[in-house]
Amino acid sequence: MQSFQPLAIQTSRADGYFIEAFPFRSDEESPPHVIAYGLGGAQVSVVTMFLNPFSDNAEAKDWDQVDLARLRYPVGMTYADITGNGLNDVIITDEYGPSMDDLWMDGGRIIWLQNPGNSKTGNWRQRFIGRSPSMHRVKAGHFTTRDRVQVAGFPIIVRAADRTSPAPVVVYTAPEFPENDNAVWEEDIAFPDSFRLVHDVDIVKSFDGGLDKILIAGREGVTLLWYDEAVKTWMSKNLGSGGSPSPGNPYWGSGCVALGKVRLDTSGFIGTAEGFHGNRVAVYVKNKDDQVGEIANANWNRYVLHDFGDLNARHEGYIHHVICADIDGDGDDELLVACMGSNPPSWERTGVWCYKPVDLETGKFAKFKLSDDSAARIAVANFRSSYRLDFATISYSVPGYFESPSPSVILHTSSFITASRLNEEVVFRVPRPTDTRLVDEVAFLDVATRKLSLVVVPPWTQYCTSEDAGLKILAGRVFWTDKNETQQERTQATNPFGVISTIVDAQDGHIFTQAEGAVFLLMTKSTTSGKPPYSDMAQLKAQNTIPPQFSSSLQHMDFPWVKVQDRPWANGRFKDLEFYNLTGFHVRYADDSDQTLCHMQLWTAGVGVSAGFHNHVGEPFCEIHACIINGTGKGGMHWATVSDGEFNPSKPESGKTDSVVVSDMYEHGPLWRTRKDGLPNFRDNGTVDYPWHAWIAGGKTQDPQAFDVWVAFEFPPLISHTVQSEAKRPQDGTYRLVNTSTNIVATIKDGDSTDGAPIVTQRSTGGEEEMWQVETVPGTNLFTITNSASTSKASAAWPPVANQTLVGTRSPALLNTTSLWTIVETNNRFSPAYLPNYLPAYSIQLVGTSLAWAMDDKQVVLMEASMDHVPHWRLVPRHLDV
Amino acid sequence: MQSFQPLAIQTSRADGYFIEAFPFRSDEESPPHVIAYGLGGAQVSVVTMFLNPFSDNAEAKDWDQVDLARLRYPVGMTYADITGNGLNDVIITDEYGPSMDDLWMDGGRIIWLQNPGNSKTGNWRQRFIGRSPSMHRVKAGHFTTRDRVQVAGFPIIVRAADRTSPAPVVVYTAPEFPENDNAVWEEDIAFPDSFRLVHDVDIVKSFDGGLDKILIAGREGVTLLWYDEAVKTWMSKNLGSGGSPSPGNPYWGSGCVALGKVRLDTSGFIGTAEGFHGNRVAVYVKNKDDQVGEIANANWNRYVLHDFGDLNARHEGYIHHVICADIDGDGDDELLVACMGSNPPSWERTGVWCYKPVDLETGKFAKFKLSDDSAARIAVANFRSSYRLDFATISYSVPGYFESPSPSVILHTSSFITASRLNEEVVFRVPRPTDTRLVDEVAFLDVATRKLSLVVVPPWTQYCTSEDAGLKILAGRVFWTDKNETQQERTQATNPFGVISTIVDAQDGHIFTQAEGAVFLLMTKSTTSGKPPYSDMAQLKAQNTIPPQFSSSLQHMDFPWVKVQDRPWANGRFKDLEFYNLTGFHVRYADDSDQTLCHMQLWTAGVGVSAGFHNHVGEPFCEIHACIINGTGKGGMHWATVSDGEFNPSKPESGKTDSVVVSDMYEHGPLWRTRKDGLPNFRDNGTVDYPWHAWIAGGKTQDPQAFDVWVAFEFPPLISHTVQSEAKRPQDGTYRLVNTSTNIVATIKDGDSTDGAPIVTQRSTGGEEEMWQVETVPGTNLFTITNSASTSKASAAWPPVANQTLVGTRSPALLNTTSLWTIVETNNRFSPAYLPNYLPAYSIQLVGTSLAWAMDDKQVVLMEASMDHVPHWRLVPRHLDV
Repeated sequence: MQSFQPLAIQTSRADGYFIEAFPFRSDEESPPHVIAYGLGGAQVSVVTMFLNPFSDNAEAKDWDQVDLARLRYPVGMTYADITGNGLNDVIITDEYGPSMDDLWMDGGRIIWLQNPGNSKTGNWRQRFIGRSPSMHRVKAGHFTTRDRVQVAGFPIIVRAADRTSPAPVVVYTAPEFPENDNAVWEEDIAFPDSFRLVHDVDIVKSFDGGLDKILIAGREGVTLLWYDEAVKTWMSKNLGSGGSPSPGNPYWGSGCVALGKVRLDTSGFIGTAEGFHGNRVAVYVKNKDDQVGEIANANWNRYVLHDFGDLNARHEGYIHHVICADIDGDGDDELLVACMGSNPPSWERTGVWCYKPVDLETGKFAKFKLSDDSAARIAVANFRSSYRLDFATISYSVPGYFESPSPSVILHTSSFITASRLNEEVVFRVPRPTDTRLVDEVAFLDVATRKLSLVVVPPWTQYCTSEDAGLKILAGRVFWTDKNETQQERTQATNPFGVISTIVDAQDGHIFTQAEGAVFLLMTKSTTSGKPPYSDMAQLKAQNTIPPQFSSSLQHMDFPWVKVQDRPWANGRFKDLEFYNLTGFHVRYADDSDQTLCHMQLWTAGVGVSAGFHNHVGEPFCEIHACIINGTGKGGMHWATVSDGEFNPSKPESGKTDSVVVSDMYEHGPLWRTRKDGLPNFRDNGTVDYPWHAWIAGGKTQDPQAFDVWVAFEFPPLISHTVQSEAKRPQDGTYRLVNTSTNIVATIKDGDSTDGAPIVTQRSTGGEEEMWQVETVPGTNLFTITNSASTSKASAAWPPVANQTLVGTRSPALLNTTSLWTIVETNNRFSPAYLPNYLPAYSIQLVGTSLAWAMDDKQVVLMEASMDHVPHWRLVPRHLDV
Repeated sequence: MQSFQPLAIQTSRADGYFIEAFPFRSDEESPPHVIAYGLGGAQVSVVTMFLNPFSDNAEAKDWDQVDLARLRYPVGMTYADITGNGLNDVIITDEYGPSMDDLWMDGGRIIWLQNPGNSKTGNWRQRFIGRSPSMHRVKAGHFTTRDRVQVAGFPIIVRAADRTSPAPVVVYTAPEFPENDNAVWEEDIAFPDSFRLVHDVDIVKSFDGGLDKILIAGREGVTLLWYDEAVKTWMSKNLGSGGSPSPGNPYWGSGCVALGKVRLDTSGFIGTAEGFHGNRVAVYVKNKDDQVGEIANANWNRYVLHDFGDLNARHEGYIHHVICADIDGDGDDELLVACMGSNPPSWERTGVWCYKPVDLETGKFAKFKLSDDSAARIAVANFRSSYRLDFATISYSVPGYFESPSPSVILHTSSFITASRLNEEVVFRVPRPTDTRLVDEVAFLDVATRKLSLVVVPPWTQYCTSEDAGLKILAGRVFWTDKNETQQERTQATNPFGVISTIVDAQDGHIFTQAEGAVFLLMTKSTTSGKPPYSDMAQLKAQNTIPPQFSSSLQHMDFPWVKVQDRPWANGRFKDLEFYNLTGFHVRYADDSDQTLCHMQLWTAGVGVSAGFHNHVGEPFCEIHACIINGTGKGGMHWATVSDGEFNPSKPESGKTDSVVVSDMYEHGPLWRTRKDGLPNFRDNGTVDYPWHAWIAGGKTQDPQAFDVWVAFEFPPLISHTVQSEAKRPQDGTYRLVNTSTNIVATIKDGDSTDGAPIVTQRSTGGEEEMWQVETVPGTNLFTITNSASTSKASAAWPPVANQTLVGTRSPALLNTTSLWTIVETNNRFSPAYLPNYLPAYSIQLVGTSLAWAMDDKQVVLMEASMDHVPHWRLVPRHLDV
């Protein structure tokens, strides 16, 4: 589950009760505003609209406030385009009275506030819809007719302190010209006396032209209400009775209700809170064979997920609202529960809890805390972008009832990427792309014509980049079709000693990912960080752009360019050189592994400056540089072409080096020494074996001053590209490996997951242990072959020798093994009659060797690929029989 | 600079102005309480004492409130033991009036509140001391006499709105029986009309039996006041005029003042804020040749450190208080500046800033933000322990003047160790022990009879442990003298394949560190986590004990024991075994390196359970286990004694393993394979070379159930112990290396810091490049030899061969070099006449080889130690001439 970083919309309110996301227009999508208010009391309550600063046309960076109305005891709210002019109007209940025991019997109004079309003016005209004492929640929809807007109102009780008599459910239908001064709404009492203490409501929206239905939560539990057009009658069906009565407690049944979607089933589960302002979270789940979308005729089973503890002396608990939304983007709704807080204060009973379905059939949900701030209600919406949901809350603070301290309105921003300060550096934590379904990005630096952001894109996802954006892959890979109709691919590293552009010149502005997803540094154009050529470091000042939902210690960090001679590690070197360093940004995976993805830092060097031939002696890492501005025109990487001992890094001899210019927005490929299989060569002490190397800026010292600006990426040891094979190879997927001549299949013995279990051959039994996932290693044309039953990879001991038995290991390229193969199509055309004859045959060779998968009795072993008896294999997709 | 974690003392106050640390007794040290209050206004102000929950005899976990007095417009406060009964009494000024422009001309009282002896009762009797309109700050001391308590009072002005006339400085002397109802304090107007707009005061306490002096900050700038006993006259000396007047602005000079200590100089600098409620931070620094402790006759130079920006329309800024204290324990005071906040709010102008002296002579201070909460004043004290200073603040909130939102009283706890949540694990960040001067510790888990804490102890520091505590070193080492008078030492790892107790059986309860300091896991006795033997996992429930100043997401974490079969990496193994895992705790250094120190997790296994023979295939690490409870009696580590290929980990054969029992509170030594020099052997793929190994619990399955509980420590590759030499060796220190026969010294050529600079010999010139630091590698009897001028270590290429030239590198044991040596005393007794003849001669040998430091012309090379011409070296301490 991602975290939700709080961003204050309003602090230090007097009170708090209701909040709703409010799309200003009904006819186009843009990030909604927020409407929030308290009940008021001695003072009137101001219904306030907070203008969304994330909308495209927002002028402000803050949530500007517009007062929509000053009302006495406003309670529930919704919205609809009542006039049909493309603008949403606000519908609100008010004049409730001080409390349930002190109702205003002539109150309980429903009014609507007419949208004036300009979000910044407060001139929202109030018009009457209807009234019933204790009018509480209100919903808009089409309940009995599709022709007019309808508003359903739900009073709680019928008179002060009467918790026994049922209250009506009333539906109002808009007149033809609702904006006319004397327009009257038609009142239809759908249920005059069936339901008691209805505290909250959810609407089952029809998406097929049918009528909307209503889910209510009250003393009767959870009930579905709908209008049957055939018989022109209101119908109801109780779906569950909720909590049981207990002596002396007027509140039983349910208090809150929300319908949850699970994959294609729009009614996958029903989330509830039990009791009026109750303390128990319960869900209803359908029988397995109930129909998708079915509610009334489904068989609902109740599971109590959590009890927040004892009720207070008034028989009330801590939950005030529940809502369902797919906040993590996995296709299934989560149940969000708003807890107002308790007295004495308790972390457990204050804030927003999330229940995520794990195993619906057994009613198993995982529980997460999303916010520690008192929540009267939750509004979920695409507040910042169309591709992820945030939520907003208002503190519960009703004088005389329950007052949480310092009431506030808060946007909780969905954050898969988190960041923390580490002295002068930042540690970003990103989800593994394969563990997330939603794009996330965080801006952090504006420097040298580029705004730098960290972006995570899930597998098989499109991502839209701005014109002339550049990107450097930190993990996974991305693809796009360029303006010459050529498919482009970027990975952690291009070809050794080569260069490649980082600019995305996609035809349609879109890049996309495949099965591995991607994490990258995005470098978009900036007009706020100077224009090259930079002749002075003052022009190169870097601006911190970390967004406001991150901690203030991050937002107020400086990222100075420090002259390298002043770095403690300079140790007296680089004296008086125009050579500067800006650190730095650690990127780690946000899971328990605490695994490092990359460390990034920026460098700049003036005309003729050498960054100094060096080698890496600390942690083992592989370094790649991407150039933002090649101010000297000829800046780039130089490396020694001789062995380490023959090179004097402080007095480099010209004949002993080679170099490559890394132009504006280019990156270079591996400069480290590799083994034949593409893995980096390690020295005895565990560091990566590098030739001596240096960035050297172009030009001569008498030239006018200019600066190269580049980013250094320090990766944990990377697999680098090896020579590409031109052979057609299979798509990634799950296959059986079938010997072309004997027709037996390869499997890990017994599907055993133990490291070292031998790979054997057998007649096909159709079992899972015969299935192998063939997967390309990103950025290479190498494959791994993973057994589906054991999840072990087909591996050979390193160094490889002929006749060694192949085994399964669950770890790639470690413990003196290698799991990297090339799969080369052969011209063996023989195919058994029962296999499609278009299936080609392959030779499976160990990378960097001429050794191939062969067979020895029932075991799979390595043999010289040139020997006649080395078999070929047919990769048969899992859906085909052998 | 450490961080300061906020811990609320009181939230949601009505107002805020003054705060002071209040030691309840004057005759014994215990953590002080906090006294805080606002000015009141329409309401009376309640002067509240918050009882310190960290004091040894505290009964509560919260800061219980005791009301000391209800006063009208109380302003300044101090304390003294006025009655001499060992209890501190409170001295307070009140009846100031609504504002400077609306003074109560009959107010301006100084009163004292008599300590009733019981901190929980509110019965503090009020008695009158004296009055003068606008009485503001008040200080106690001995200003003209040592016999009686004296109270100095500092009015700001003499009548409402008069910002021009000087106000008096008044000293009151306690009567003989101050608790008598009609006792009258003697009034002495020290300065009737010399100083204007004195906003704050610091006392220069005399520690040599002299009289206390006074530093005042006002329109005249900073002035020292003192009473000259010889001439019986009050004297004053202006030390600096502060900020300059500007047209229309009544406030110039200084507004706040505090005296800072630097090493032995109690008056190392003077910190000030300029203007009345000003916006500028300035310091005064003495000339270099001014005397230590001198103030009046020193030459003070003013440096403006920071300007918080424009003044408001009332000509006022944001600073309300400055104070000096050595909060980071480095021996020099820092200047802490309290900023009340601004309208509109600004992060820059709200909270506490710290200015730390970097280079006093040039007035250079580093700037850190310590708190983002509005601060009217700062109280610094040992609130939680005697070995580190915390500070407390109260928000500035004076109705009608400046009101910060949600005023509160907050303790800012000094935290060198920080923690953050990473999904189900915790990441602790600890300072490098050598970078800190103060002990820090954080409790986190109570499990299986032990409370686990992470502790950092600086170099050369004593640390007191409780009875029967155990400890496991994570970095550095600790020593103690045990009850048999034997010196004990603990390091990251004991001898290979051996075991050692983790219990500290120190004679005096103290352990101590040497030059490297230490980080360790402390395991103190707990009576709140059950009693062994544990026959059921329910008894083993682990409690989170992370203290309240850490984030709520940490405090509310669960640390469940998860059955290993349910871990995703179990992959179908460990089915139905009583084998559980509790993760986990990452420990990293809290500096920009983001370097890993250790990952810790806990395990438990029932009778007869094998944790499974395994090897490490992920990140390279060295693993050590410490047993908390050996419930099965015979639990311990088993390892294969044969090569990896000859061992089947799923069917271990008994003849192919060895084992060691790891008893209650014991740890074992390295089980990985090492090179001759003690470094771990690495496999080709960068992992550490281990035999197959496993924890196997004792007993047979038919025995009654019992559980082994142990902690696994995963370290980055460790240097392990090698065979100990019995030779006497030199103490760590700085030496010249003098050849015993030729009397020439070894040096890195030209003191060059470049990696690979050769080590050469020369006649001594006395320069720094001849100096070498000889340092033991913690946990070994190996040494490194580091050149003082170049900071490079004497190194040899690896693998070592005879005749290779030795060089300097700045990185130990990396890049195919080794920097590890043994230094063995030889029987060469020849000593030049001018050297003390007790200096022994040494042979310097490369660890794991028979190669020794020798000479070849002017270079130092490696030679077989057995050869006749291999020279010996005399280690001559740096203070002795050669």
